[in-house]
Amino acid sequence: MATIKVHGVPMSTATMRVLAALYEKDLQFELIPVDMRAGAHKQEPHLSLNPFGQIPALEDGDLSLFESRAITQYIAEEYSEKGEKLLCPGCKKVKATTNVWIQVEGQQFDPNASKLAFERVFKGMFGMTTDPAAVQELEGKLQKVLDIYEARLSKSDFLACDCFTLADLHHLPAIHYLMGTDSKVLFDSRPKVSEWVKKITARPAWAKVIDLQKQ
Amino acid sequence: MATIKVHGVPMSTATMRVLAALYEKDLQFELIPVDMRAGAHKQEPHLSLNPFGQIPALEDGDLSLFESRAITQYIAEEYSEKGEKLLCPGCKKVKATTNVWIQVEGQQFDPNASKLAFERVFKGMFGMTTDPAAVQELEGKLQKVLDIYEARLSKSDFLACDCFTLADLHHLPAIHYLMGTDSKVLFDSRPKVSEWVKKITARPAWAKVIDLQKQ
Ligand SMILES: N[C@@H](CCC(=O)N[C@@H](CS)C(=O)NCC(=O)O)C(=O)O
Ligand SMILES: N[C@@H](CCC(=O)N[C@@H](CS)C(=O)NCC(=O)O)C(=O)O
Repeated sequence: MATIKVHGVPMSTATMRVLAALYEKDLQFELIPVDMRAGAHKQEPHLSLNPFGQIPALEDGDLSLFESRAITQYIAEEYSEKGEKLLCPGCKKVKATTNVWIQVEGQQFDPNASKLAFERVFKGMFGMTTDPAAVQELEGKLQKVLDIYEARLSKSDFLACDCFTLADLHHLPAIHYLMGTDSKVLFDSRPKVSEWVKKITARPAWAKVIDLQKQ
Repeated sequence: MATIKVHGVPMSTATMRVLAALYEKDLQFELIPVDMRAGAHKQEPHLSLNPFGQIPALEDGDLSLFESRAITQYIAEEYSEKGEKLLCPGCKKVKATTNVWIQVEGQQFDPNASKLAFERVFKGMFGMTTDPAAVQELEGKLQKVLDIYEARLSKSDFLACDCFTLADLHHLPAIHYLMGTDSKVLFDSRPKVSEWVKKITARPAWAKVIDLQKQ
């Protein structure tokens, strides 16, 4: 089997999403760093891997993919027999419902959570100044989303069903960064959400992603 | 077979996405209007169908789904034998690549195109005023996305492969509205994109969606 190659950096939320899926699946891979300070992501050869000039990109043999959520779905399906199941092997109803919550993450949670992480974490790293008005607006929107999660998680252990799936996994990077900021209270103040955050961040595969950041 | 029920309105971009998929698949369905002026989408019984208080929602027998892109994927897979194929029945490579371009629409195209349609079309309908600075910023971002589409569409007839798939279909609602505005030039000025827009908007299933708006 050709080695899987991930082009990205371990601090990047979108890259972390892919790394988490690979570790859950117990797959061997090579992480090929992209020198973003030098603008390597906006130049060849990276643009041939991801025409949007973003990370991550994945290579598996002659298959080349980008967009983190398309990559995780490929990993979950292509390596369904390896490691942890990331798609609950239930009926068509469970499959369709998993897709609903995968979309919810991408369309409702992430647009707010990523921008909030940018304001609260990444702006500081890049020497930029947090905009308190933006934080307030984003937290307001995120709270509405988390209220819906609280109701959902009182009906099933995880978002899609009683199993951990990609729908949960996709949330990990933004949650990881936000839990290190004052926005933590948004998660902690909702009992079911808080329990869910504890469960998904405690997964051994996730610990490996965080370890990679420390290297 | 229980009749498929779509809760939504034919002017809504997210509802149109689902209607297009149903017509492509030649499926019978009932469109159940949601009185958004009266706020019906923010109340029961709609909130039980879509906890985010948005349209559309779909019911198929005892299965209830929301998020337009999760609904279209369910329709394409569940009714794979009916009507047009919306997922190219190719190898795993084609499947994974289709998923990449489905993600590109949701993550790169739609956030800009939807907001631009809001500025240019919906604000007018709701008696609000278009913000020229927002239009300029969104058009700038959309142009960068369309440059990448132009390159992609010089390699394959459609985004994912040489077949029309959900990855193309998902673009139809926003493109439909933007083609009625000055933003049309963004599409027209790119030969491959322009050809693609003509092909996808000329599909008989799409004509049926537009007809529904006129009723
Ligand atoms: N929707 C994309 C987002 C990728 C993304 O935003 N990557 C960031 C790092 S987390 C990046 O490359 N930023 C640089 C840029 O956009 O120029 C995905 O999920 O893969
Ligand atoms: N990501 C959702 C978006 C749904 C959406 O934004 N629907 C709009 C109409 S096109 C709506 O219900 N807006 C009212 C609201 O958000 O309160 C989907 O694709 O279904």
